Amino acid sequence: MDDATTRGSLTPHEARRRFRAGLVTPTAGWSRGWAQANLLVLPREEAYDFLVFAQRNPRACPLLEVLEPGAVAGALLDGDVRTDLPAYRVFRDGELVEEPTDLLGWWRDDLVSFLIGCSFTFEDALQVAGIEVRHQSEGVNVPMYRTTRRCRPAGALSGPLVVSMRPVPADRVADAVRVTGRYPGVHGAPVHVGDPAALGITDLDRPDYGDAVTVRPGEVPVFWACGVTPQAAVVESRPGLALTHAPGHMLVTDARDTDLLLA
Amino acid sequence: MDDATTRGSLTPHEARRRFRAGLVTPTAGWSRGWAQANLLVLPREEAYDFLVFAQRNPRACPLLEVLEPGAVAGALLDGDVRTDLPAYRVFRDGELVEEPTDLLGWWRDDLVSFLIGCSFTFEDALQVAGIEVRHQSEGVNVPMYRTTRRCRPAGALSGPLVVSMRPVPADRVADAVRVTGRYPGVHGAPVHVGDPAALGITDLDRPDYGDAVTVRPGEVPVFWACGVTPQAAVVESRPGLALTHAPGHMLVTDARDTDLLLA
Repeated sequence: MDDATTRGSLTPHEARRRFRAGLVTPTAGWSRGWAQANLLVLPREEAYDFLVFAQRNPRACPLLEVLEPGAVAGALLDGDVRTDLPAYRVFRDGELVEEPTDLLGWWRDDLVSFLIGCSFTFEDALQVAGIEVRHQSEGVNVPMYRTTRRCRPAGALSGPLVVSMRPVPADRVADAVRVTGRYPGVHGAPVHVGDPAALGITDLDRPDYGDAVTVRPGEVPVFWACGVTPQAAVVESRPGLALTHAPGHMLVTDARDTDLLLA
Repeated sequence: MDDATTRGSLTPHEARRRFRAGLVTPTAGWSRGWAQANLLVLPREEAYDFLVFAQRNPRACPLLEVLEPGAVAGALLDGDVRTDLPAYRVFRDGELVEEPTDLLGWWRDDLVSFLIGCSFTFEDALQVAGIEVRHQSEGVNVPMYRTTRRCRPAGALSGPLVVSMRPVPADRVADAVRVTGRYPGVHGAPVHVGDPAALGITDLDRPDYGDAVTVRPGEVPVFWACGVTPQAAVVESRPGLALTHAPGHMLVTDARDTDLLLA
């Protein structure tokens, strides 16, 4: 399953089956043409604050779906959010306490699952436009950074904006903006182009999540809002329990990329 | 205040002052260049369901702002949601019980105000594109219709899609789609073009809300999702208390139309 063509051609159902069976890997490049999603699971009591947080921070938290309390499947997922992602994170009072490969032992009937758009979804469109996606070429996870830009708080939830970074040749930056801008449901256009220091990023080679990638001469680091932002808010705001995907290890959904295009 | 140029040139602050002082009028064409919003107010206990309802029905319920429980002002409104609209509706258990000009007598500290994008916002852009807005020309409220299309339910909330209608010359329909499609935060592109019967609308001359307008030969009725949709859900789902704007009598916000353009 190391072959890019093979993993790219798997249906979402097949990809999820492999992850359910225990395969742990970042999901960039998997099931090309199918949308990917971030996962955040909160108790119903804390879910209201996150709904407002997402409304106030739509670039970082574009909600694709909110499952009913206790539900583990929905229109975007003919499967089980507790088992079908490659890796998860469990936070108690804001502390990362476990990185399991399923959430079965943590599940409760009052838990609400939020599926949040993931920028892996537009990477296929970038590649079709001839823009290389470096972390895919280098076979690593996408680099993600906690920034000094603050999200708008909501109730008990506050935290920094987290961004993903892709290096883009200077003469293709405008194309990257236009291509990804057509996908607002999966973070849309970049929030920042060049100048990492203005976001408080001191060293591109030391991402807070994921892996560093090569930035070549003539390339500009381009930053998109990232669905790991809720995890940073969880760490800062310390809800009693929060379950998430492991950064880069996403839910492969049953929605096509094109379903997320501007309607 | 009957003069279109005058009402169009008022600042949001000035327009709201007149409504606060008691003027009752539909707000299409007021404060050109400034965004308008639908209002829905629900007790905090019922607000969760509406947040999910809005997420599941983004064309009808594009949320511009969710105020903190009890709050009457926010980033979009340097004023008071309880007094600054021309007219309101009060629903108890789904029944319309009053149409007051302020909500002061109904206010409680647990009430959450939702500001929802209104298609009046893109009417200026339509006119700039040379597309006449008939209800403005005829000096009446926009016609709105309850359709047979169902919204996706959320918790206790369910109901039909409500649409607004503007007649557009057949050779300008594509332009109307493109112009309004740039404003997804205020309902965006039409949900339906022509064929009212397919939406269950039997007589365009008898709208369920607002006023009928002339449809001339060579014009096509074009339908946009409408922020009265939450009111139809309130009637059907019967929350204990719900406060809303009166259809067509909107909040004139402190956001510019252009703030709602595609980012």
